[in-house]
Amino acid sequence: MKTRAAIAWQAGQPLTIEEVDLEGPKAGEVMVKLSATGVCHTDTFTLSGEDPEGVFPAILGHEGAGIVVEVGEGVTSVSVGDHVIPLYTPECGTCKFCLSGKTNLCQAIRATQGQGLMPDGTSRFSLNGKPIFHFMGTSTFSEYTVLPEIAVAKINKAAPLDKVCLLGCGITTGIGAVLNTAKVEPGSTVAVFGLGGVGLSVIQGAVLAKAGRIIAIDINDDKFEMAKLLGATDCINPKEYDAPIQDVIIDLTDGGVDYSFEAIGNTQTMRAALECCHKGWGESTIIGVAGAGQEISTRPFQLVTGRVWRGSAFGGVKGRTQLPDYVDQYLQGEIKIDEFVTHTMPLEDINRAFDLMHEGESIRSVILF
Amino acid sequence: MKTRAAIAWQAGQPLTIEEVDLEGPKAGEVMVKLSATGVCHTDTFTLSGEDPEGVFPAILGHEGAGIVVEVGEGVTSVSVGDHVIPLYTPECGTCKFCLSGKTNLCQAIRATQGQGLMPDGTSRFSLNGKPIFHFMGTSTFSEYTVLPEIAVAKINKAAPLDKVCLLGCGITTGIGAVLNTAKVEPGSTVAVFGLGGVGLSVIQGAVLAKAGRIIAIDINDDKFEMAKLLGATDCINPKEYDAPIQDVIIDLTDGGVDYSFEAIGNTQTMRAALECCHKGWGESTIIGVAGAGQEISTRPFQLVTGRVWRGSAFGGVKGRTQLPDYVDQYLQGEIKIDEFVTHTMPLEDINRAFDLMHEGESIRSVILF
Repeated sequence: MKTRAAIAWQAGQPLTIEEVDLEGPKAGEVMVKLSATGVCHTDTFTLSGEDPEGVFPAILGHEGAGIVVEVGEGVTSVSVGDHVIPLYTPECGTCKFCLSGKTNLCQAIRATQGQGLMPDGTSRFSLNGKPIFHFMGTSTFSEYTVLPEIAVAKINKAAPLDKVCLLGCGITTGIGAVLNTAKVEPGSTVAVFGLGGVGLSVIQGAVLAKAGRIIAIDINDDKFEMAKLLGATDCINPKEYDAPIQDVIIDLTDGGVDYSFEAIGNTQTMRAALECCHKGWGESTIIGVAGAGQEISTRPFQLVTGRVWRGSAFGGVKGRTQLPDYVDQYLQGEIKIDEFVTHTMPLEDINRAFDLMHEGESIRSVILF
Repeated sequence: MKTRAAIAWQAGQPLTIEEVDLEGPKAGEVMVKLSATGVCHTDTFTLSGEDPEGVFPAILGHEGAGIVVEVGEGVTSVSVGDHVIPLYTPECGTCKFCLSGKTNLCQAIRATQGQGLMPDGTSRFSLNGKPIFHFMGTSTFSEYTVLPEIAVAKINKAAPLDKVCLLGCGITTGIGAVLNTAKVEPGSTVAVFGLGGVGLSVIQGAVLAKAGRIIAIDINDDKFEMAKLLGATDCINPKEYDAPIQDVIIDLTDGGVDYSFEAIGNTQTMRAALECCHKGWGESTIIGVAGAGQEISTRPFQLVTGRVWRGSAFGGVKGRTQLPDYVDQYLQGEIKIDEFVTHTMPLEDINRAFDLMHEGESIRSVILF
């Protein structure tokens, strides 16, 4: 069949909208008609050419929501008509990782996904007979896409797909880092570095965890209004202090925070986030993705005196098991999504969404099909 | 009163044995007659002059065991005749740290302890009217010493003091890092870097935790016999491989270990210990103390993909609450100490113990009073 899709032909070039060929789902795969997709920083990162895994030409996009329109042989967990969110972190339920009970990083299809291919090593997309690569196993910048069954989460049909698509990445990442990875306890003091979509969602997660104090840190004061709206109790701009930000926070909190989160991808901020943690028990979680080859550093004494350094991917959330609950929590008003959407536009305007991203990290565009 | 003690007059100089003056215990303090003390690497580190907290002249030693001979005003938790192990990490039970339930790093007397003084800001030791500093709040290189009540653990009188003195530092540090800090589960794969007294005790801890596989790593093959005796299942010498040791271990373990421990104090080994952990859940615990100013580094991707970096001091063991159990476990044959003692000697020969330390990390001398 044919589908409208935005193709990234090469790094640094605008996408073009094409009618591409899409093969139907093979065994264990499903075809989804997307209703909406977010445009996320990871899409811009790959399009910039800096992603070492990036392959072209490809159909980007990984923050979608849609409806199953066809299922391949042997598919049993979803049916035509089901509403789903594509998962760039799948959940097979049977690999060593899924069975560990300790991580959401299912590795069942990791190798092919990293190559821009479906699990059988081929692509479902092509144009004029030449294959177009998949992206993050999702390729949501296409009206129709094909995904492995293990890479879709079946959700409540009452949920508006043009909102819950954002649970496919950033919002879930931030909330999950608090609830799943750090496991913040009620009454805790929390600091979050960087108030883009992920950082703001860390604030949401901290509110859900009933944190006693939520300190929001950004070098742009414009972010503080939204941070406070979501539940930040303190907003700090490091530019207003001469002292290193970790020292400022330690002073402000009588010794440091119980939990910190880095949602920028800057290795210096990652260090500050660790070092602002309380001696004896403070835990810092890295969420942001640093540039290739960059390294984090600290004195080991920071760890020997009780601080813990960890990281989180997709918020430690098991997509098929846990994401449906996040959708329900949104429907119950416990998770905010609508407030994050700054622009909506049709697929044809997708390059505008990329352009807008450069104006600020708070921009969240949703593409409607 | 007078007591025989070994005085460290200045960095890099041999100790001299003197009859020093010792004031009796003030309120909240106890006097202990030591039966034995270990000589630990931290003593040599401070004597070398590299310890930024080191002050001279001082009475070193922190790995002792003895009997309470006098108690100061208000002391209620120990009585004359009680057998005790001095604690360089005290346990007041009432500070923010003790009450947190998350750390053993009681801070009640941290400031004065770091200055070589008792909690009231003075020293109990003097010679010819000039004060001699305490060390680590313990100063066990003295036949008699005075300690805060919160810095002694009351133990089973059946325990031989010339053995359980080693529970005052290294052996407890290694075992506790496994049981208290990392909380290794049965069946886990464990790697330990460095097979000195602490590293060998990590092996003991891993055996107590019922680890399935215990990989011992050292660049000196001579250490492997003892490691195997204590329960190591694999011994690896990194010098026998061209590949980085983390890659060797990942290959050997189908993806990495569940828990690793660094018991050397080398920042490169700390990195290797983290990076040999399994994606998704591997946790690395730093026990070794690195040189002043040295830093650990890694790519943040190591953490974002699920590894955890933490540290441990005195094995995360709360001395007054938990150390008595360690002594009982020794008496029941579950914890080995006798095997660690390579030399015993009187206080007068203490400089020989320091000299022996330079011959190898496996040397553990016990001084008998």
